[in-house]
Parts: sequence; structure tokens; C-alpha cells
Amino acid sequence: MASLFRNTARLRPLTRIAVPRHVAVRSLASASTPKQATAAAAIQYDEPASEAPFFEQEPAGPSIATAIPGPKSKDAITHLNKVFDTRSLNMLADYKQSFGNYIADLDGNILLDVYAQIASIPVGYNNPALQLVSRSDEMISAIINRPALGNFPQSDWSDILESGILRVAPAGCNQVFTAMAGSDANETAYKAAFMWKAQTERGGPEVDFTQDEMSSTMNNLAPGSPNFSIMSFKTGFHGRLFGSLSTTRSKAIHKLDIPAFDWPSCSFPMLKYPLHEHEVENAAEEKRCLEEAEHVMSTYHNPVAAVVIEPIQSEGGDNHASPAFFQGLREITKKHNVLLIVDEVQTGVGATGKFWAHEHWNLSTPPDMVTFSKKAQTAGYYFGNPALRPNKPYRQFNTWMGDPARAILFRAIINEIERLNLVENTAVTGDYLYNGLEQLGQKYPGQFNNLRGKGQGTFIAFDHPKRDEFLLRAKTMGINIGGSGASAVRLRPMLIFQKHHADILLDRLRKMAADLA
Amino acid sequence: MASLFRNTARLRPLTRIAVPRHVAVRSLASASTPKQATAAAAIQYDEPASEAPFFEQEPAGPSIATAIPGPKSKDAITHLNKVFDTRSLNMLADYKQSFGNYIADLDGNILLDVYAQIASIPVGYNNPALQLVSRSDEMISAIINRPALGNFPQSDWSDILESGILRVAPAGCNQVFTAMAGSDANETAYKAAFMWKAQTERGGPEVDFTQDEMSSTMNNLAPGSPNFSIMSFKTGFHGRLFGSLSTTRSKAIHKLDIPAFDWPSCSFPMLKYPLHEHEVENAAEEKRCLEEAEHVMSTYHNPVAAVVIEPIQSEGGDNHASPAFFQGLREITKKHNVLLIVDEVQTGVGATGKFWAHEHWNLSTPPDMVTFSKKAQTAGYYFGNPALRPNKPYRQFNTWMGDPARAILFRAIINEIERLNLVENTAVTGDYLYNGLEQLGQKYPGQFNNLRGKGQGTFIAFDHPKRDEFLLRAKTMGINIGGSGASAVRLRPMLIFQKHHADILLDRLRKMAADLA
Repeated sequence: MASLFRNTARLRPLTRIAVPRHVAVRSLASASTPKQATAAAAIQYDEPASEAPFFEQEPAGPSIATAIPGPKSKDAITHLNKVFDTRSLNMLADYKQSFGNYIADLDGNILLDVYAQIASIPVGYNNPALQLVSRSDEMISAIINRPALGNFPQSDWSDILESGILRVAPAGCNQVFTAMAGSDANETAYKAAFMWKAQTERGGPEVDFTQDEMSSTMNNLAPGSPNFSIMSFKTGFHGRLFGSLSTTRSKAIHKLDIPAFDWPSCSFPMLKYPLHEHEVENAAEEKRCLEEAEHVMSTYHNPVAAVVIEPIQSEGGDNHASPAFFQGLREITKKHNVLLIVDEVQTGVGATGKFWAHEHWNLSTPPDMVTFSKKAQTAGYYFGNPALRPNKPYRQFNTWMGDPARAILFRAIINEIERLNLVENTAVTGDYLYNGLEQLGQKYPGQFNNLRGKGQGTFIAFDHPKRDEFLLRAKTMGINIGGSGASAVRLRPMLIFQKHHADILLDRLRKMAADLA
Repeated sequence: MASLFRNTARLRPLTRIAVPRHVAVRSLASASTPKQATAAAAIQYDEPASEAPFFEQEPAGPSIATAIPGPKSKDAITHLNKVFDTRSLNMLADYKQSFGNYIADLDGNILLDVYAQIASIPVGYNNPALQLVSRSDEMISAIINRPALGNFPQSDWSDILESGILRVAPAGCNQVFTAMAGSDANETAYKAAFMWKAQTERGGPEVDFTQDEMSSTMNNLAPGSPNFSIMSFKTGFHGRLFGSLSTTRSKAIHKLDIPAFDWPSCSFPMLKYPLHEHEVENAAEEKRCLEEAEHVMSTYHNPVAAVVIEPIQSEGGDNHASPAFFQGLREITKKHNVLLIVDEVQTGVGATGKFWAHEHWNLSTPPDMVTFSKKAQTAGYYFGNPALRPNKPYRQFNTWMGDPARAILFRAIINEIERLNLVENTAVTGDYLYNGLEQLGQKYPGQFNNLRGKGQGTFIAFDHPKRDEFLLRAKTMGINIGGSGASAVRLRPMLIFQKHHADILLDRLRKMAADLA
């Protein structure tokens, strides 16, 4: 399936949800709209926002009733902690009362949510179109008749894929292996890379396994279990299961005490900001990293089957690199016959002003595999090269191999993205938000440092010297916001985040900056 | 939460679905019951089955209209294969037309399904009670407002756990870490074991990580990434991601070309059947395996943090061992301070005549962790020891950490198991089925070899000299059945499989045996 989203910012509206935009949304939602938050006047910032809201029943602004957590939440958290680890709990949410960009809690607090479940809610809480799809007979059947997709796929599985997941496949990819979440999406892609490399070295798909391979693998030993590797980048994040964690290099706390494969890492460019003031240094830094990458991938003692990289290192601190860097990496991987896996788990599905962040790079040849999860609400890896299908069945296989219910949901998300033209929305709103933050940075020096994400939709971050205090204080101002790396504040609003939401966010950030100045 | 299912075969009926059994089911289902299959007269076998059907609208028997795959299925499979690997495809299913124990395809074939999506459908296709729950506002919200459970759990998460997953927690377990599927359930349990072992060696939860640990783990090296191991058993299966695959020892095709950890394996008892004719040899075999296990776990060069074992090795060929073996293993692990992880992914949730298969063992101290998936339709690991909660937050963490929608479904499955008394049903029906197979074995020598699973509910298997032909031929007789290991036919009917279904199965198996005799 060709992607409708490739090389175009404006998307063709779908007839699938053939209803006038706001009227229909209002009527669909009427049964389950949470009560309006007490209107907190949206304070204008910079230039007035004028576009019509996507969801008119959304609260007009945040509304703070108690400290967070308030008394009801505290009681509930104490209870939950008896059976479920709550030490990473950020906020106990009341999703019945959440709507659009706003998340509610048990104590009546309603926050503008620019963290969005770690960048994974695409089109708003209680989105009416998703609600409708979730009530459909098709969804009900997918929930209660969950198939072992590799053995007993449902008869409409090709339709679900082609009208959903594959309709937005990146250029060069026309097949998918579905999975459950980001970690196993990456790990199954790694497995495909290892099988491909072994097959290449063996002399092609027709060459049979040797007896030595067949017996040694049962003892986890070479040659059957070869010492191949995946190369990843320092400060990168690719998941937390054993293979994916071996490529994750974000923070020690993610990795400590867990055995890891002897796989190589190399430096990701650490650029200086603002970019236009450091062009020469940054180009040199990217050149240095590419040279290191080429050296490592061509010399590491455990041969490198694939390189995995995020378009923007997200958990690791919102580290960006230029298209030239990624073009260079693609060239090096081609030269050394190493596969390139682009991990779009956090960057994918519209947040950067393109449907896939790697569309910003204009590569001469596409990535070999692209992984996705989070905003897709399902997961997997895309590929195009038929040699990446293992040469025999049951080599890439598991019981469920994904979840048709979540694939149906992703299709509805894609339809909603088209209907509301949300990829363009993130591009336009992102520029507006970036400009506002740039102005805040000028007004409050030292508080919005290394602002990054220009031209990358709403995928924006900055460093703050008191980051953790900043995040906590944001909640008291009605903003739910997240961090990444050691000192970054990362903005991960939903795709339905509009200029009037940006105005509210900028206003609250301005007040916080004034308090901290 | 104490388990309602422990030490009791008869379950208290729930008031949650407070409706008369058959009347309610019929009325709930009326909107979406598939049309009745052409009644194939159920032929009585051995003794007549007399119990009332759980679902009166279920087809009276299999119905075969075409070869499988038929013309419509063939076309659809060809189409699907362009975008999705279909080489492991067994049967393209039409779930709209499937009901209860019967699976349908596009060509009008309706088969009695004793494979059940690789042992993962618990209470029947289009189960009316699950249908009702799937239409609830609670489910809709869980589907469209999917939380990052570690950060922003929904306010009723403790209730969903306590009234569902934890209500059936195995003895000794009162906490859960939720996951997505069997592989990551096992891998997160392994991670908990490694963190526990490192903490023990470090001197307790209060002892901080050293600088050396913090820096070495970023390069995947010891001491931060220690060379600890998980011991597993030969012919065991624990999943296909990198950590779980390193403990899987079922077949070479599952492991070839994938790098693996240097982790140890040891022999699982290979018992001789019938058991009562080989008591002395089998006891010696189990003793030998225990001695080997103790030797390996106490001497392996990569120190063993935990042993993982299936109560019945399923993918590896339906290999059983006695309670005495498992009691011995528990003693050895205690003695050497090694954790015992029981992998109940395939055996759990009622199929063996107990809710958890390891309840058959009467252990003096419970397993340290128990993993689950498949029939639970969600996944995770149970634990009781508070030291298995890592000493700091964000050590055991990922974005979704499971799926509340699937947790809500599991709760509905538990309710249905209670309402229909399904654990007792598998015990009673299993005995009936086992006896029938034993008689078939006497009548057709050499075709129902090494019959196993006596007293293990419907978790029954036998070896057949022409296994693959046998499985294919079964489809033409209206039976969907699976294999395991090299030569086993494994029966994995749903929990709603009753004596009248067993009669049909036994009748068809008898005809096949007569043809092959």
C-alpha cells in the first residue's frame, strides 16, 4: 500500500466518517462528554489564536481544585500500592472525566496534558470517533475472539491491514509484522535482521542449516546462535526487554543488574543550540559521529547485522541530528551491508509535522525496517525487502502476533488524522509553539535552554536548570508535562493540540518562568 | 487477594452475572449468534454424555462443506500473503460465524476446535457474557484511553486488579506486574529475578549502586550488566524474544540465527507410559534430572538467579513430570537460594482441572513467581515476596505495562469460569476424555501412544506415528487439532468443552484410527 501521507502535508479527507467536522463530533460525543471544567480564561500570548476548536465540548482551560494528588487520589494510591508498584506514579487519572487534550483526576483537577501517556495518546481522551469504532461489532469480535494471527487469522485481516496499518506505511515498505508494544516491535525487527544476516553469510535462502547449527543453537552457542550484534547510539532508547535493553543506552537505572548482550554503541551527535550559531561545530560533531559509527560497524568483534536509531532520541533527552547525519548513516550502512532500522516508536504517527519523522531526511534509499507503537496504539515493524521474510515458516512467530482490536483502533486513528488534517496541524501548531518558546527564552534567560525541535511539529524540548521542580510546579498551574534525559522538559502534546492550547501552555510557562526568575 | 480457586474444585457462583444460566446466555447472545451448523448427529461413544450444554445455540456438531482451505479461503489467503507472511497459516477463520467450541471459515466449514488459538480461547467464540462486557462503557474507555499504567493508572485500576487478576492469584502471591503476552511476562519476571539476585549480593536494598556499576552497564558490561543466568529445561518453551528465547529449548527452528545468552539448561524427565507400568524407571529418571538440575544450578559459570519451568512442557511435546519432581525442584532451589519461576502461560487458567496447574504439586513453599497469559487474554507475573519489588522506581517499567482492556476481559472470563463451574468441568470432562482415549488406544494399537494427562483435566496428549497426516486428516473430519514437539497430538480444548463434545471428538478419532489401521 502506498502511503497517503508521503510527500504531502495536506491530506485527502476520508469519506469513511462522512460527516461535517464539528457537528458530527458534537453529536457523537454527547452521550459521554465529561462535564465542562470551570472555565479558566485562556490568556492570549504573542499573536491571537483563531482557528476553530476540533472538539467544542473540550474544557476551555485547566482547572485546579486541590493539591495534586488531592485527598481522594492519595487514598486511592495508598490502596493501589498494596498490589501494584506505585512509586513511578505521576497522577492517578479519572479517564471518565478526561476529554480531548485534558486529563482529569479524582479530586476534580483538570490539566492540559502535553505528556499524553508518554506520547501515546494521538487524538484525545474519549475521542468520539474512536468511541464509535470501539462500540462496533467488528471491535467487539476482535476483543472476544482474539486469534493466533499466524495460524488462524481472521478472514478480514488483510483488509484491516491494508485500510489501516499499511495505508500509512513509510515509503519503501509494503509489508508488516505486527507486535504488541515498542520493545517487541524492535526485538522482532532485530530477529529479522539476524536471520537475514545469517542467510546472507550462508549463501542464500535455499541453503539448509547444518547439523552443527541445529545442535549448537539448542545450547545457545555459535554457530547456531551466532555472536551477531545490533549497533545502537549512546543516549538512545529502544525498550526494556533483553534484546531491546541491550540497545538502550539512556540511563543506568534502565539497565542495572540485567544481563546484556555484548553489542556495540557509538556516539550520537550532541549539537549546540541555537543551531544557526553553531553550524560549523555541529557539522564537525556529526562528521565525528559518522566516522565513529562507520568504524564500529565495520570492526566490532561481534559482527553488526543492523543499526537501530531514533529520528529524535526521546527518552535520552530529546537529542536531534540533521538530515545530513541520517543521510550519511544510510550511506555507511549500505556500504557495509548493514541494515538500518529506524525506531519511530515515539516519533511516528504525525507528531513531528510529518507522518513519520524520517520523512524529514529525504533518504536516497529508504530504511530497511521501521518500527512503530505508542500513538499507533498497536505495534510492529514495516519492511519492503522480501529477503526480510525468513526463509521458512515459524521462524518469526508467536501466539498472538499483535492484536486485531488495536489494529482496528489504529485504523480509526488514521481516519481521524485525515479527517482533521492533523499532520498539518502539528506542523502549523508546532511552529507557533516553537516561536512562543523562543520568545520566552529571550525574556527569561537561562530557563528555556537549548530549545530544540524547530520545524519538527510539536516535538519540542528545552533544558531547564531546575527541571524536576519545574515539572512539579507545572501541575499546580494546570499543566501535565514530562521530562526526558537529565534536564530536558519534553513537550509531547497530542495531534489535536491547537494554537489555543499552545496559548494556554505558553501563558502558564511564562508565569512559572517569572516565579523562578 | 486469596484465590477462590485454591484447594477447591467447586466454585462459588458469582452474583456479578446474576442470571439463570441458560436462559440468560441465550437471550444475551441472540443478536449475534451464527447460524446453526447443519446438524451432524453426535455419535455416542463409550458411555452416553448427559450434561446440559452450556450454550444451547452452539452447533450440534462439525459441518464440512469443502476441502480446507476451500475456494474462498484460498483466494483470501493469496491476497493476505502479499502483505503478511501466511506460511504458518493453518486456517483462515470467519469469527463472525464461529461460536462456542466451533470455529468457522469463509467456505462454510464449521470445525470442533480443540486447539483454541494455541490454547488461548477460554470460554468460547462469541461468548455472550464477554460480548456484554466488551460493550460496556468501562471497556470502551479502556480501549480508547489507554494509560501509561506506571505513571497515570486509571483510578479504578486497583479494583480491576483485585476483582480480576488478583482474585485468582496463586497461593503465596498477592501482587502482580502486568504485561502484554507470555514472552514479556517471562522476561519481566527474569528481570525481577536478576535485580533480586544483584541486590542480595550487594547486601540489601539500601546499598547504592557503585560508580563502576553505573558506568559499565552503559556499555553492557559487568559488573553493572552482570553475567547472571536463568536455568531452563531441555524441550521447554518460554517465548521468543531475546531473553525468553534464551530459555526456550523446544526446537532448533525457534532459535536458529538468533544470538542467545550463555544460560544453562538441564534435562527434563522423559517418562515412560503407561506410568503405572514404569514406576521404578520413571522415579529414577526424575531423580537423575533433579541431580543434574542441582549440579547445574550450583556450578554454572554464569550464576543462576532463577529456574523457569512449565508444569507441563507444552510446545516441547507435552512432557509431564510427577508432583514429587516439582517438590524436589522447589527444595533444591530453596537450598541454593535460586528463585523458582513457574511458567503457567499455557497450563494456567483452568485447563488442567485446577485453576493453576502447579496446584497439583502441593508444594511446601509456593513458587517465587508465576507467569500467565493465553487464556487470561492478558499477561504478567504474580509474586508475593516484597523483596521482588525492585528497590527503586523505574527499574521495572515500560510505557503501557499491560492493557486495562484485556484485564477487564480477564475479569469477565474469571466470572464466566465461576458461573459455569468450568474448572470442575475440565476435571470431569478431562477424565471422561482420557478414558475414551485409553480405550481407543487399546482398540488401535500403535496410534494413541504414550497417552498422557491423566488427572490433568483436558490437557491431554498422545503420540501418533503419522502425526502431521493425522492433524490434516482431522480437519476433513471436522476437527481442528494441534501438535506439539516431534510427534505429539495435543488436545487443548476450551474450558467449555463438555462430554458431548468429547463424544464427537472420540468418534472422529476412532474413524481416523480405523482408516489408518
